[in-house]
Amino acid sequence: MSNTKLDALLSSLKFNNQGLIPAIAQDSEKDDVLMMAWMSKESIKETFASGRVCYWSRSRQALWKKGETSGQHQELVDFLIDCDRDTVLVKVKQHGVACHTGRRSCFYFSVTENGECIENSDIEIDPKDLYKGNPS
Amino acid sequence: MSNTKLDALLSSLKFNNQGLIPAIAQDSEKDDVLMMAWMSKESIKETFASGRVCYWSRSRQALWKKGETSGQHQELVDFLIDCDRDTVLVKVKQHGVACHTGRRSCFYFSVTENGECIENSDIEIDPKDLYKGNPS
Repeated sequence: MSNTKLDALLSSLKFNNQGLIPAIAQDSEKDDVLMMAWMSKESIKETFASGRVCYWSRSRQALWKKGETSGQHQELVDFLIDCDRDTVLVKVKQHGVACHTGRRSCFYFSVTENGECIENSDIEIDPKDLYKGNPS
Repeated sequence: MSNTKLDALLSSLKFNNQGLIPAIAQDSEKDDVLMMAWMSKESIKETFASGRVCYWSRSRQALWKKGETSGQHQELVDFLIDCDRDTVLVKVKQHGVACHTGRRSCFYFSVTENGECIENSDIEIDPKDLYKGNPS
């Protein structure tokens, strides 16, 4: 993608007052929603440049190249924008697991009818085996 | 769900400094992501009380009972919470279309490899037929 096209795309998006836009990651084959995080203009540029999804870590105030530490990266398959242009949906090929707890998806708490919060999925990879440094 | 259980659930969630939490809506059968909006504590209470998804409209600063005007409501099927407890995923039975433009999903812009932004879906219902007053 040319820089001109990318700049036009970024200009068309509505970032919040912190310069961020919510980004939902969905598995492109299994269709499960894996996580929601935030993207900056820079992280969107990095995503298109590398073909791997890059978020903005609000806690670390830094680019968050998903999987850089853990190896559990997300290959970009499709980049979608909503009607208000204030939310992004990335369809990805998830390598390994998306959640820092070692589960496939971050949405592993289900609220039951009586209000209990139960875990709906198992840990696939021990978090100790995922990270040697900062989670990413 | 008892009030005690609901209060415990709400207390466990992390709302932002505006008292809101992002909520992703996904069709429970077709698995497509329909929209992203925001929920307040009150809208979550309303969602569980009615069985229909209720958001918080930031533009109108009011409860947004999805489909109240348009009839295109979302029946709650499953309520999921992520690992950080700062994002909600509602699986829904979508009655009609989710997007105010009359498309099924709000994510109808696809970015192509060369950076063009194309529409990936058709209008199913004319927006003029959806609303007689405020969009919801």
